[in-house]
Amino acid sequence: MTAASDLQTRVHVPLGERAYDILIGPGLIARAGAEIASRIKGRKAAIITDRSVAAHYLEPLKASLADAGIASHAVILPPGEKTKSFEPLIEACDEVLGARIERNDAVIALGGGVIGDLAGFVAGIVRRGVRFIQIPTSLLAQVDSSVGGKTGINSRHGKNLIGVFNQPDLVLADADVLATLSPREFRAGYAEVVKYGLIDKPDFFEWLEKNWQAVFAGGVARIHAIATSCQAKADVVVADERETGARALLNLGHTFGHALEAATAYDGSRLVHGEAVAIGMVLAHEFSARLNLASPDVAKRVEAHLRAVGLPVSMADIPGELPGPERLMEAIAQDKKVKSGKLTFILTRGLGQSFVADDVAASEVQSFLTGKHPG
Amino acid sequence: MTAASDLQTRVHVPLGERAYDILIGPGLIARAGAEIASRIKGRKAAIITDRSVAAHYLEPLKASLADAGIASHAVILPPGEKTKSFEPLIEACDEVLGARIERNDAVIALGGGVIGDLAGFVAGIVRRGVRFIQIPTSLLAQVDSSVGGKTGINSRHGKNLIGVFNQPDLVLADADVLATLSPREFRAGYAEVVKYGLIDKPDFFEWLEKNWQAVFAGGVARIHAIATSCQAKADVVVADERETGARALLNLGHTFGHALEAATAYDGSRLVHGEAVAIGMVLAHEFSARLNLASPDVAKRVEAHLRAVGLPVSMADIPGELPGPERLMEAIAQDKKVKSGKLTFILTRGLGQSFVADDVAASEVQSFLTGKHPG
Repeated sequence: MTAASDLQTRVHVPLGERAYDILIGPGLIARAGAEIASRIKGRKAAIITDRSVAAHYLEPLKASLADAGIASHAVILPPGEKTKSFEPLIEACDEVLGARIERNDAVIALGGGVIGDLAGFVAGIVRRGVRFIQIPTSLLAQVDSSVGGKTGINSRHGKNLIGVFNQPDLVLADADVLATLSPREFRAGYAEVVKYGLIDKPDFFEWLEKNWQAVFAGGVARIHAIATSCQAKADVVVADERETGARALLNLGHTFGHALEAATAYDGSRLVHGEAVAIGMVLAHEFSARLNLASPDVAKRVEAHLRAVGLPVSMADIPGELPGPERLMEAIAQDKKVKSGKLTFILTRGLGQSFVADDVAASEVQSFLTGKHPG
Repeated sequence: MTAASDLQTRVHVPLGERAYDILIGPGLIARAGAEIASRIKGRKAAIITDRSVAAHYLEPLKASLADAGIASHAVILPPGEKTKSFEPLIEACDEVLGARIERNDAVIALGGGVIGDLAGFVAGIVRRGVRFIQIPTSLLAQVDSSVGGKTGINSRHGKNLIGVFNQPDLVLADADVLATLSPREFRAGYAEVVKYGLIDKPDFFEWLEKNWQAVFAGGVARIHAIATSCQAKADVVVADERETGARALLNLGHTFGHALEAATAYDGSRLVHGEAVAIGMVLAHEFSARLNLASPDVAKRVEAHLRAVGLPVSMADIPGELPGPERLMEAIAQDKKVKSGKLTFILTRGLGQSFVADDVAASEVQSFLTGKHPG
């Protein structure tokens, strides 16, 4: 068993009987067995992962579990968004049951957001719920999807439409695994880190402006950025576990972002989720300025920072042709449910002063988009 | 809107934020729209049902919903246990999403246990949970499966292995619909009614001994029997919502019963669930007597009552050949997880004095079964 590093940070998510810890630090996969064994009664685990992640981290994780007396079985799925569908779900449930996982045993998600969402759903429905551990291996999953308990798969009617709220029993965010991410993947995850500053932590945004190179380099600054993000997400989740109100703030940049992802047919070679969110956050700030809610200088500052780290910041930065503003507007309307011509948007009154606006006129959005469209 | 009948009874299930009512009485399908509209915010519903039930009750239910301003879409599945599998689940989720059911809208289960289990699972996972209403149309579903929140489907690894705990928002047990049940189906449901007396309500068992003809005839005695059963189940569920302890008492008669269902390959022409439970309850009482826990007279009294209503009470009552006692024992061991040669059983110390015994020697069970086996 490796000793806990001085760099290790803990974020506690106080959700009553569903409370759990997020551990952030180096070397956590090597310590996973001990951390898990101290938190669950069972001594069996099914590891759900994808082929790419398995190549790097499956054997070290299995070894760590074995050292702690936990027998493990691996369910290795194809990487990519298509894994969030019924067929892999059925396969995973079948393998987990075949491995005789009982209620006190664990399903472990070892991977990015796709694996975490799928494995969390599996853990929530096998035997009506078994223990669930998240080991997120992308920055995006560490700061966003692994915290909060949203799990699920996609439907032909839309993304994430089938699933359960299932809080993990433990999240292990191993900072070392981010070393194998491509720079583009790391930047995409960083967009969600910036988002927490823009929601309600202007000091954190300023800290990122000054320290982003250190965050990208790794070490203590990176761990601070991840821990601050996890704490921010945990605070929102605790206030609104099942997304009936304040949790909507986490969608800052996501309404425009989802429309751009749909407009590029979820083609990751053109635009990945974090990049769409980066552009979406700039648009949300520009739109807030246009509505005279915030100064245009705030939008410029957000744009400057995201551009500095290498993220796209405007529709013109997306390679290839985009559909026209009317088509983007249709995607937004489908995503959001238009009520009597009004939409719900996350807007801002200034740096780190985001709020939920539920009466945005669809016509205003369309006219704004037309002005911003590069075509 | 029809006025509530004087015969109507309400059982409240006090599960905190998941609390709900069970209404028992005549004419409840005709009043369903009003009862549902007063409990949910949405004005859309998806009715999940099977072809047999739909023929009788779908149109009256749709009319009642329409009168209350609730638009409904019906998802009609084949009747039978095979509907509790992934393919119908996927189809139902797709249709419910296609009907644009949102979180405040409802999925309504209109049918017996199979439909209730499937629809409850669908309601629990579409959009990570929408409102859920149970309208059980068999006696078994009214007194057992519609109360308590267990939902799910079967796996090739066993029954009910994939699902969620999802408490309904309302249960409407319409006593009138039992008129279309076959006598055999009614008797099978009655076995579960008797079970509540045998768990911890000896007075209720005595009442059933005296009044069973009136219960079978309908009217106020039947409503009393259903309401007492629902109250008994609700009490156990409130004490142990997620089945970590006392809820196991509800399995009285079920360990032997499940083994007999497996031994007859779930062939409903030979043995249906309630019949298996009836035989299982007699065996559990005889086994308790053999272990010197209870007087053999108690087992005889239980057997006499179940026989009087026309239920099978011994393995010899099952048509066709049964596998030998070793095979039955294997089925029990698979169902129950043998820990160092010990099994968990629901046994009794007397009439209505059941308890969870977690140290029953597998060898004792096998020797008992060998003595009882008709072969």
